[in-house]
Amino acid sequence: MPPDLDFLFYPQSIAIAGVSGDKAKFNGGLLYLQSLIRFGYKGKLYPLHPKGGEAEGLTIYPSLKDIPGPVDFVISAVPARYTPQLVKDAVNKGVKAIHFFTSGYSEIEDVAGKALQEQILGIAQRGNMRIIGPNCLGLYCPSGGLTYNSDFSAESGTVGMFSQSGGISAYTIQKGNARGLRFSKVISMGNGADLNESDYLEYLTRDPETKVILCYVEGAREGTRFLEALKTATQKKPVLVLKVGASESGASAAVSHTAALTGLTATWEGLLRQAGAIQVNGVEEMVDVAHALLYLPMPRGRNTVILGIGGGSSILAADLFAEAGIPLPQLPADTKKRLMDIYGSEAGRILKNPVDINSFDGTEVLVRMTKAVESCDNIDLLVLQLGYDHYGLIAGPYKELMTGMFLDSVIALKKAVEKPLAVILHSYGSAWTTELAMKMQDKLIQEGFPVFMSIQSAARALGKYYYYMERHK
Amino acid sequence: MPPDLDFLFYPQSIAIAGVSGDKAKFNGGLLYLQSLIRFGYKGKLYPLHPKGGEAEGLTIYPSLKDIPGPVDFVISAVPARYTPQLVKDAVNKGVKAIHFFTSGYSEIEDVAGKALQEQILGIAQRGNMRIIGPNCLGLYCPSGGLTYNSDFSAESGTVGMFSQSGGISAYTIQKGNARGLRFSKVISMGNGADLNESDYLEYLTRDPETKVILCYVEGAREGTRFLEALKTATQKKPVLVLKVGASESGASAAVSHTAALTGLTATWEGLLRQAGAIQVNGVEEMVDVAHALLYLPMPRGRNTVILGIGGGSSILAADLFAEAGIPLPQLPADTKKRLMDIYGSEAGRILKNPVDINSFDGTEVLVRMTKAVESCDNIDLLVLQLGYDHYGLIAGPYKELMTGMFLDSVIALKKAVEKPLAVILHSYGSAWTTELAMKMQDKLIQEGFPVFMSIQSAARALGKYYYYMERHK
Repeated sequence: MPPDLDFLFYPQSIAIAGVSGDKAKFNGGLLYLQSLIRFGYKGKLYPLHPKGGEAEGLTIYPSLKDIPGPVDFVISAVPARYTPQLVKDAVNKGVKAIHFFTSGYSEIEDVAGKALQEQILGIAQRGNMRIIGPNCLGLYCPSGGLTYNSDFSAESGTVGMFSQSGGISAYTIQKGNARGLRFSKVISMGNGADLNESDYLEYLTRDPETKVILCYVEGAREGTRFLEALKTATQKKPVLVLKVGASESGASAAVSHTAALTGLTATWEGLLRQAGAIQVNGVEEMVDVAHALLYLPMPRGRNTVILGIGGGSSILAADLFAEAGIPLPQLPADTKKRLMDIYGSEAGRILKNPVDINSFDGTEVLVRMTKAVESCDNIDLLVLQLGYDHYGLIAGPYKELMTGMFLDSVIALKKAVEKPLAVILHSYGSAWTTELAMKMQDKLIQEGFPVFMSIQSAARALGKYYYYMERHK
Repeated sequence: MPPDLDFLFYPQSIAIAGVSGDKAKFNGGLLYLQSLIRFGYKGKLYPLHPKGGEAEGLTIYPSLKDIPGPVDFVISAVPARYTPQLVKDAVNKGVKAIHFFTSGYSEIEDVAGKALQEQILGIAQRGNMRIIGPNCLGLYCPSGGLTYNSDFSAESGTVGMFSQSGGISAYTIQKGNARGLRFSKVISMGNGADLNESDYLEYLTRDPETKVILCYVEGAREGTRFLEALKTATQKKPVLVLKVGASESGASAAVSHTAALTGLTATWEGLLRQAGAIQVNGVEEMVDVAHALLYLPMPRGRNTVILGIGGGSSILAADLFAEAGIPLPQLPADTKKRLMDIYGSEAGRILKNPVDINSFDGTEVLVRMTKAVESCDNIDLLVLQLGYDHYGLIAGPYKELMTGMFLDSVIALKKAVEKPLAVILHSYGSAWTTELAMKMQDKLIQEGFPVFMSIQSAARALGKYYYYMERHK
């Protein structure tokens, strides 16, 4: 079966309904137009508004029928009451799909909203046109030149996503971009009146560009079909699910948000596990697990050694890794002896697992120490941890120097070490140490390292990474 | 009973042993000297080193007995083997207390280390001199001009802390400073050979400068005394405990770190709860709960309403607040009607609890909306949430403008609203939105707002805040 929704992501021409020349007011249509232009969309763009005029140097057409050429795709940013006419015009124009940024349909507690959604759906179905939304941000697909926000990376990648929240999709993309993720296709799907979560999941499963699937789900419109789609998907690629609406208030809010019925938490948890999906507890964790899947070569097993600077952070790390089900085996006696030989004394250090090297003694010492630990048969993964604000006596620019030297050495170390290696940058309180850590995150990701920004997030993401990997060897 | 350890924090003169003129090597003594000078310590400073010389424009004395005036306090940064002589000299000089940065005592798996600790302890006790450490960073007390790191705020405050990890204490201070905490006294206590966790807890309980006590604990040397001290302390002020070493690896590392015996997790949890302490799961949570205790006026009850921008983040917030035991009651029908009147339509919004206002419509609308919600009898606390990277269509500098306007309005709002109000700034992925959020954190804290940097951390901190407050009304 071919990936039948490809046409959504590669339109040759897009009309945007509701592009007003009046820039003083919030103008969703104009924002879409500007984003697509800035993003470098290569096809034809047609702004629409009954009053005509000009926007971004383009003629604003009064309606779809006035556009000279064909139109593949329509973005609607007009008030809900005008949309039945727009849908009729689109069907007549031969439009293949229409995306409704517009809200005010089944998600409002108003019979009229539900009726309106039924009406536009009926017209579209009879005209063989697909609907994205309503009440959503639409499509992001770098390889097709599509976006709803010009802050998103224009580089194409392997992470696909569908989301019942536009805001969550926007945050996931930006957080993901900062964490080295690049996306294939992201669908902010809103109410899912026509195309729903099952359609998108089935599509992303078959899409060869997509290697990892992320989902933000409030509820499923076709429960049984979604579960089947999920089972099929997880056989082919990792599927990460952020399921929300567990609480009474959350469930009630979800109805107002996308008319989703959230169902019972316990039921969902069991079904997701059975289906082989990876359930995550927030956007950050979803991005972290995806990051691990893309950046960490599969270790032979779970046995991990943690090396780094700081006794307190070493013990915290030991607790958090244990909690996440990642074993930190004892180092053999001869390894401890080799470490003692390297350092001369145990004073101020912990030469167990975790290994607290206390302070940075230069690249050569770090390499010798790491190789001594790597050579243990019972170690599969090395984790290096560095806390920015843990350096006791080191203040100001010296802190930058010390952490910089340590991390440069870690980069050098990569060549000397064969076993998989992950880095944790943690504990930055002030604005400047945070900036430092984020810069170093970029650098390490560019070098191809898996990097985590707190000990806790590393432990939890690695725990879920192993959970998946061990079931799909 | 007077606070009998005051003399530790207000020495008139300090000698630092192990200040070498050789700047090329790591020189702990020199770093202490530099930190104290930069921090503005007002008393006399005497660097010590057998070779003499000069450091930071001060004469380096060969030994304590060569110093012309009296010495109240000694910081030792010399190797462990030289410390018995140093302790003898200090006793002869009439020194009141000595702090050992030096490690290599009972925390190493070496009989000699344990014997050495016993030896210096014996000399000090016979000479009526107290020991801080060994194997620790020592004292931070802005009102006494003491610090071990010149990055710490020189402003005095009400948060006291003792910590068995120097690195954790350093991070807590810096994270705390960034989150609006100012400290009275912080003790990095290391092995606690003489003064131990019970001594410091009893002191901080009686110290009038200290209003909140933070503890990082691996294990207690005098279990029963510590538990009694904790019970007394929690009657007078909130005590937040970060207990680590729960895992096998963590417990084993703790022995090498500070010779602490960590005990059973289940036992500790029960004892801490019985004693009325607030157990926290990391430095960040410890700082967040302290922040809530200092910045949030006690609401009448737990009933909370969450207002903000974004459907997805509203539902996530509802789930996380429910998980933390904070109820989000339904808004009365007439309140919902008032909100509908303010906004004209429900389209794209959630007018329940959480309230998703979807987009920012200016200060006046925000004030009217918030006052409408505040006036509900069943609401005790207002929480405003703003996610930086959730703004769907808003990109680049417009995002800064939008979030800025929203937050300026929140500041204006404070005058119009009487019920307690907290702010959550969340979801920043990129370096620039992170910077933006941290700037706004500073500004809001300066305005006296309780601010949290993620939805999850807000929910958990508020949950623990309520837990404490309801037991100590």
